[in-house]
Amino acid sequence: MTRIAVVQTNPELGNIPLNVRRAVELIASMEADLYVLPELCNTGYNFADRREVDRLAEPPDGFTFRAMTEIAAKTKARIVYGFAEKSDALYNSAALVGPAGIIGLYRKVHLYARETLFFTPGNLGFPVFDLPFGRLGIMICFDWYYPESARTLALKNAQIIAHPSNLVMPHCPDAMIVRCLENRVFAATADRVGTEKRGVTELTYIGKSEIVDPDGGVLIRMDQEEVGIRVVEVDLKTALKKKINRYNDLIAGRRPGEYGW
Amino acid sequence: MTRIAVVQTNPELGNIPLNVRRAVELIASMEADLYVLPELCNTGYNFADRREVDRLAEPPDGFTFRAMTEIAAKTKARIVYGFAEKSDALYNSAALVGPAGIIGLYRKVHLYARETLFFTPGNLGFPVFDLPFGRLGIMICFDWYYPESARTLALKNAQIIAHPSNLVMPHCPDAMIVRCLENRVFAATADRVGTEKRGVTELTYIGKSEIVDPDGGVLIRMDQEEVGIRVVEVDLKTALKKKINRYNDLIAGRRPGEYGW
Repeated sequence: MTRIAVVQTNPELGNIPLNVRRAVELIASMEADLYVLPELCNTGYNFADRREVDRLAEPPDGFTFRAMTEIAAKTKARIVYGFAEKSDALYNSAALVGPAGIIGLYRKVHLYARETLFFTPGNLGFPVFDLPFGRLGIMICFDWYYPESARTLALKNAQIIAHPSNLVMPHCPDAMIVRCLENRVFAATADRVGTEKRGVTELTYIGKSEIVDPDGGVLIRMDQEEVGIRVVEVDLKTALKKKINRYNDLIAGRRPGEYGW
Repeated sequence: MTRIAVVQTNPELGNIPLNVRRAVELIASMEADLYVLPELCNTGYNFADRREVDRLAEPPDGFTFRAMTEIAAKTKARIVYGFAEKSDALYNSAALVGPAGIIGLYRKVHLYARETLFFTPGNLGFPVFDLPFGRLGIMICFDWYYPESARTLALKNAQIIAHPSNLVMPHCPDAMIVRCLENRVFAATADRVGTEKRGVTELTYIGKSEIVDPDGGVLIRMDQEEVGIRVVEVDLKTALKKKINRYNDLIAGRRPGEYGW
């Protein structure tokens, strides 16, 4: 059995030391094998302009990475967290770290709304990573809207999708039930709460971080305002069985020849 | 504006004349531009064996087709209905007819459970048809489980998906909200009600026929037992606009290069 945690935060825009410290405290407060944190959990989300992102973004081995690796070593856990990445370009990224440091990186493929002004679209595809407890894939927030995201991860045999998010539209929590059903995977959506007002742009985040199982069962759903951490123990092997009855294997039953794309 | 009707029936297994007569009566009872009827609406669903299907199946220009074309001519409407097709093989099919006869045929691509014992998987892809009120695509029941079905139709610019169904699992009505959201299409799911017991196999159908709009709004949802017809007037042009904000066009925003399949 594997203990999966979703961490729901309320970052203060631009205050990376504070946001990371609070995230680390939440991680330290409850034992798990995998912690999933929100999108851009170190910086906040509602940037004024690209210059602000450029100032706040970090390389993959920056301050946030070091803090996350330190708590991963202490807890012997794996952690997926969203951060603003500065390397050859600015990316809306998520890192997967463990006790020994970096394991993998994902760069958001489907940028949402004003993110398109600040970030370069992801160019690493949808990678999967083999961890002691199973195979993990990552997608970020609006990627959920595209069925191709979770499908790509399922076709690579991901058993659980870590899904750092900053949700402003209402649909995702229920839609993730469909993503899990259609792919028979687990998903851990870690969202943030709170409101960020910058100039005329005010965004309120819906919280509702959740963990869903391959039968579409909602194992955990947090509320819209709570800051905290929730853990559930799951059997990730369930996600390896793609049969939903003796006749239908969901993945083997795909018929690409009839889709024509 | 276009009037879309879902017709929810309770066919008697094997009694084609009765089932077709009742379906025609429901169509005649309320005006619409498009009527969508359930999967296998002429035969019923829970067949004992392949021999029974072979006995009940009809060519695309058979008895059911003639009755549907006749009422299409009287009502000047288009009708999508599910039937057991016998041509070079047995297919779980849906026909689209109008006042002048046959317009198109779809053969279920993703067969569900025991259907795999009776029918040959569909080999016509997911075709779309241009009607006076807009472009229509067809998928049947379990096709909903595969995001590729509705996606294929949306990529062919279908504005509305006619979705004849015989639902036994609970997920479809809510999942169709996601299918409509992710593709910005309308969908009309026509389901049946009732219970069919054959030997050890007893199936209860969940009804809940529905019409959903491109914003994921449920315009109509029938109950679990009602036999009847419901009509809603919609602006199918809405489904041509794939932008959900000034930055995100859902279809143009797909990134096949990152999916790798």
